[in-house]
Amino acid sequence: MNLRIPGPTPCPDEVLEAMGHQMINHRGPEFQDMLRRITENLKKVFDTKNDVLILTGSGTGAMEASVVNVLSPGDVVLAVSIGEFGDRLAEIAQVYGASVVRLSFTMGTAADPEAIRKTLKENPSIKAVLVTHNETSTGITNDMAAISQVVREFGKLLVVDGISSISSIPFHTDEWGIDIAMSGSQKGYMVPPGLAFVSVSQRGWEASKAAKMPRFYWDFGRAKSYLARGQTPWTPAVSIFYALDVSLERMMEEGMENVYQRHARIAQQARDGVKSLGLSLVADERWASNTVTAFKIPPGVDPGTLLQRLQSDHDVVLATGQGSLAGKILRIGHLGYCTDKDISLVIDALRSVLPKLGFQPTPSRARRS
Amino acid sequence: MNLRIPGPTPCPDEVLEAMGHQMINHRGPEFQDMLRRITENLKKVFDTKNDVLILTGSGTGAMEASVVNVLSPGDVVLAVSIGEFGDRLAEIAQVYGASVVRLSFTMGTAADPEAIRKTLKENPSIKAVLVTHNETSTGITNDMAAISQVVREFGKLLVVDGISSISSIPFHTDEWGIDIAMSGSQKGYMVPPGLAFVSVSQRGWEASKAAKMPRFYWDFGRAKSYLARGQTPWTPAVSIFYALDVSLERMMEEGMENVYQRHARIAQQARDGVKSLGLSLVADERWASNTVTAFKIPPGVDPGTLLQRLQSDHDVVLATGQGSLAGKILRIGHLGYCTDKDISLVIDALRSVLPKLGFQPTPSRARRS
Repeated sequence: MNLRIPGPTPCPDEVLEAMGHQMINHRGPEFQDMLRRITENLKKVFDTKNDVLILTGSGTGAMEASVVNVLSPGDVVLAVSIGEFGDRLAEIAQVYGASVVRLSFTMGTAADPEAIRKTLKENPSIKAVLVTHNETSTGITNDMAAISQVVREFGKLLVVDGISSISSIPFHTDEWGIDIAMSGSQKGYMVPPGLAFVSVSQRGWEASKAAKMPRFYWDFGRAKSYLARGQTPWTPAVSIFYALDVSLERMMEEGMENVYQRHARIAQQARDGVKSLGLSLVADERWASNTVTAFKIPPGVDPGTLLQRLQSDHDVVLATGQGSLAGKILRIGHLGYCTDKDISLVIDALRSVLPKLGFQPTPSRARRS
Repeated sequence: MNLRIPGPTPCPDEVLEAMGHQMINHRGPEFQDMLRRITENLKKVFDTKNDVLILTGSGTGAMEASVVNVLSPGDVVLAVSIGEFGDRLAEIAQVYGASVVRLSFTMGTAADPEAIRKTLKENPSIKAVLVTHNETSTGITNDMAAISQVVREFGKLLVVDGISSISSIPFHTDEWGIDIAMSGSQKGYMVPPGLAFVSVSQRGWEASKAAKMPRFYWDFGRAKSYLARGQTPWTPAVSIFYALDVSLERMMEEGMENVYQRHARIAQQARDGVKSLGLSLVADERWASNTVTAFKIPPGVDPGTLLQRLQSDHDVVLATGQGSLAGKILRIGHLGYCTDKDISLVIDALRSVLPKLGFQPTPSRARRS
């Protein structure tokens, strides 16, 4: 199966092999060693000297954790949204009693740092800014360097959803002054879903001391105190740690710069391929994501049938649209374990299936010349 | 390694093999089929017609989920505790703003249903009762049939931590009228940690409608609505589903009655073995657990050295004591993938190591006669 959804991504054989490791005592020396090694490697991926904590749960769990550990009910927060995942972060903050100022941008565009500046200026009571680095629902990457500079100017706490970017797209936690950054195992790490990662800055820890949103399972303080003795507070998903240990070593060998360049290259290939078929990207290309490419389903083509035929005839699995984009777009994941060949096969499959469903792709000049 | 801790338990080869399955789309037809099959089998294990939801997280996550989905801040709840895990459930309720009436029993004994009756009579404002079925910290199993009868007499909501019992010790969700029951993959299911299960009764669903504790990741309503279309709200730990699918089939083949009898038999063997060495059980034997046996470390024996020697010389891994029992007891897990032979090897290892650390076990008559 050519699984091309924005997570879970396929896993290399050595990672799947590691998943089959027999259980060990999660409070014993073997786990201790592994947890410390993994944590050090994650710090390299996050490009940070901050604490990095590993939680057993999905990315959404890390989103919830990031909110409840640094905020109190009634806190005013600015939620910058460019799609489904930005909205989700805002909703979590609201559910836990934050007073949420929403700043939303048109689907397919990035957040405008100047608009963020304006909102922060107009709302001095804002305590924290929640923002998505890479919006998986539309295939857009925000300019975190620019956004973080604005947020720092105002001295606000900065909470960044880097779930689908960190490990695939350059991310500089310390340079950008990000207080809480989060990510998830099933993304660029090439590991099955089940673990989430959060980095916490010194300011993040100070905020957590004052934060009154209720928390137990996701409590950063407990995670930090257990990490000091090489453990997690609750029974961790041991198998995924084994897999992550192997995949992080693999990433370190490839080198993060090379990982980023590979993602940039195949992402460009995906966008060029989609356009070469005469399909339209959802994303304004200036901010197109290097981990996922969303394209509009041409009028008249049934999305369900298109997905089905891609899988049954070509073994290619793409992702549907979410929320208001459901039925209107498809998404190609190209993060983690992904090669140029994988993307060519997706484009070829689309070129073959679309005409059968009533859409005539642009003839492929590049391949026939 | 003879891993004899009360979870994670060792996994059969076929389960570990399933862990190595390549990723699939968690919103596609393959996952749908698997989720439905697993859910039906879990209902058999829980002995219930109630909804059973699968959450990506540890058992403690299921504990938190069970509290926040049915309670509101200010609700008066009775937390019945016979050890660490009972205390944990009480603490979670407290963190989320419940007014907790604590009824604690001496470590090593079970909860007294009459004491629960008395407390419910004296505190008519109690809305729900939180209770641990099997207390892993001491090796005690509460009499859920008797306790649930009392709770039903008063018409209270009944929330039961069956994390380390359900799948190993007879548990009858519907017969006992349990509104919320929870369990975890790394226990009797013979599967790695990372998934937790909760059953929700009709009364539980009604309570959830009124419940005002904040929740998002653990929200039962979201889990139920996604389950209806064969999905989970957030990206699930796909690999552990694969493993669980295999292990549940294996359990169905063995038959739950046989599973329970096997656990009862090896538990008796563990207790007899420990006593045959001249060691003392933590548990009053009337309520001794069939999944874990705790014994007191003899005076003069260093707990750390004992654990180390058991592992280095005999490849046997036991669990330490938790909380106030740390350094005072050791625990033998005998749940899930465990045979008579595994237990004999533990007792033999103790018989060999203890004299080297200053404790002379009772000579083994049974084996020499």
